[in-house]
Amino acid sequence: MSNPFWSPALAGLEPYVPGEQPRGRKLIKLNTNENPYPPSPRIREALADPALVQALRRYPDPESADLCAAIATQYGVESDQVFVGNGSDEVLAHSFYSFFRHDEPLLFPDITYSFYPVYCQLYGIDYRTPALRDDFSIAVEDYAGPAAGAILPNPNAPSGRCLSLDEIEKLLQLQPERVVAIDEAYIAFSGERGGDSAISLIDRYPNLLVIQTLSKSHALAGLRLGFALGQKHLIEGLNRTKNSFNSYPIDSVAQRLAVAAIGDGGHLAESCNRVVATRERVAAALAELDFEVVPSRANFLLASPGTMDAEALYLALRERDILVRHFNKPRLAGYLRISIGTDEEMDQLLAAVREIQTAQGTSQTR
Amino acid sequence: MSNPFWSPALAGLEPYVPGEQPRGRKLIKLNTNENPYPPSPRIREALADPALVQALRRYPDPESADLCAAIATQYGVESDQVFVGNGSDEVLAHSFYSFFRHDEPLLFPDITYSFYPVYCQLYGIDYRTPALRDDFSIAVEDYAGPAAGAILPNPNAPSGRCLSLDEIEKLLQLQPERVVAIDEAYIAFSGERGGDSAISLIDRYPNLLVIQTLSKSHALAGLRLGFALGQKHLIEGLNRTKNSFNSYPIDSVAQRLAVAAIGDGGHLAESCNRVVATRERVAAALAELDFEVVPSRANFLLASPGTMDAEALYLALRERDILVRHFNKPRLAGYLRISIGTDEEMDQLLAAVREIQTAQGTSQTR
Repeated sequence: MSNPFWSPALAGLEPYVPGEQPRGRKLIKLNTNENPYPPSPRIREALADPALVQALRRYPDPESADLCAAIATQYGVESDQVFVGNGSDEVLAHSFYSFFRHDEPLLFPDITYSFYPVYCQLYGIDYRTPALRDDFSIAVEDYAGPAAGAILPNPNAPSGRCLSLDEIEKLLQLQPERVVAIDEAYIAFSGERGGDSAISLIDRYPNLLVIQTLSKSHALAGLRLGFALGQKHLIEGLNRTKNSFNSYPIDSVAQRLAVAAIGDGGHLAESCNRVVATRERVAAALAELDFEVVPSRANFLLASPGTMDAEALYLALRERDILVRHFNKPRLAGYLRISIGTDEEMDQLLAAVREIQTAQGTSQTR
Repeated sequence: MSNPFWSPALAGLEPYVPGEQPRGRKLIKLNTNENPYPPSPRIREALADPALVQALRRYPDPESADLCAAIATQYGVESDQVFVGNGSDEVLAHSFYSFFRHDEPLLFPDITYSFYPVYCQLYGIDYRTPALRDDFSIAVEDYAGPAAGAILPNPNAPSGRCLSLDEIEKLLQLQPERVVAIDEAYIAFSGERGGDSAISLIDRYPNLLVIQTLSKSHALAGLRLGFALGQKHLIEGLNRTKNSFNSYPIDSVAQRLAVAAIGDGGHLAESCNRVVATRERVAAALAELDFEVVPSRANFLLASPGTMDAEALYLALRERDILVRHFNKPRLAGYLRISIGTDEEMDQLLAAVREIQTAQGTSQTR
């Protein structure tokens, strides 16, 4: 597909395709890793503030200073170590532009967030994709050698597997002259109080950029708020790019709502703990149903349905108004990625799987 | 300024510097062209909708379909002729990437929105800047010849001067194989019901892209909502870029609030008419105070304070808590750009100018 009015590079882009957001139909939606529980009640209070309408008349603070300060306080860094963006996707885009446009290829896992190669296309970045091990874990030693940097989600998606801080440090030491970005979209589900976050390493590694989002952990996917933490010189680089693209990426409402949500650490912990408990229960239940379940530290499970065809199961679940995600890609085609919903939703999923297995067993017996 | 971790191009960027957004201090703020009147009352109603909090838990519609439909209805185009972005700055950024990265230089006026050369730097686009005439009008005939396309604000900023539709058509015909983007951020102040908008030309010109924003006309600078209108093939090009950058640029709240505001055409007309009436009155008053006032069709005036030094007047107004904008650039250094505020605010501006003139007259007499 090309067009005489387009920039030539445009025809070569293969844009990212987000998980389906069905409209209208009432579905059990386990396909885009949203949090099944509502955001902090402070969101409702912030929306009711009559000052909000008056604030909309004026441009928002281009630097989102209050929000950066709130994030800094909550995560134990300085305000000038915080960069905020319109969802972590925008933060990622600016990171690719700011840090990864070198002569060498960028490194990221062969199975990971499928937006990474799209950013590379967008900005003309070459890349190399070390393969995950057979158990879907990342082999950190593969990230050595000349490179434009490295990026990986931790926990990784769609595997849910998590690297230890020791492994992250090893990676940082393998690429001391390039930025290593750790995309922690799911870290809040990884352990006690996000204990495996690389944030604690920032002061020791000038090449470390940690990226997080309020989408999953804070149940605010609709708010579009992501952020990056790193030493000041990296944040300055991101701000140079941002201020050459859009001075005011975070609207007045989002700035205020995000400040409200960030401050409610109690709600965050409670919400994430519930999801983790459900994840563990469902992982065990799926294993009992002969699924091979990849050990997950995120709010989703990657699981292969034993003798069943994964795509057929995806379609059969869909017929029952249950939406999960199937990736038609090498090594993933035999798996489903199942977001963790409420206990009730997951019980409906498990019941549907049993029903489909029984029906299949019956038809195979015939 | 450079940094070993940055992409090499980053050091060469000279980011855009937005107009000051002073915090805390109570100022008469006439420096960033915000609308002095509140947005549609439907905004308050939309914010009070209890469904808003629940919507925030999920990803927003990546295609902002309801909003595109509302814009299409209001502006008399089809939904697939509408592209929405996180402020018109993001729409502009994607437009530069999508349409202007050719071998020839992009064309825009020497005096215009100062973000244009920044986008060119960001994406490595060469550009040529035909000079405005002495009266700050655009000489359309200068936009002929091999080019990557053309972009200009209409009304232009910071002059406020407006091209006629005949001139816009001439421009479109001079560059039939390249996109001509008309940045209509201020068009709602240009005449009866935005009569000079190029939207009416879209069906006849496959190279025409019209860009608008809710920031000024709809008093929603804080919401960050801009849009582009054009034939479907141009909108497809923008969507390719957007979907390679950020799938969900418009958050759930902004989508709903923008739909509410777009539908309230009555409020828009009333608000813009008030601003236009004030502009005409203030332009006449400044002329009486010996200012040279450029004829404006926008919500600001570019005016040269006669015998006074423009920068000194800017500073003297600032001392009196009145903020206007002074551009320290060729041909603009002798002018101030004054946003149109409420009648009361403008009366305070005029009184302050008289006071400063008198004080200066006194000091000159000494």
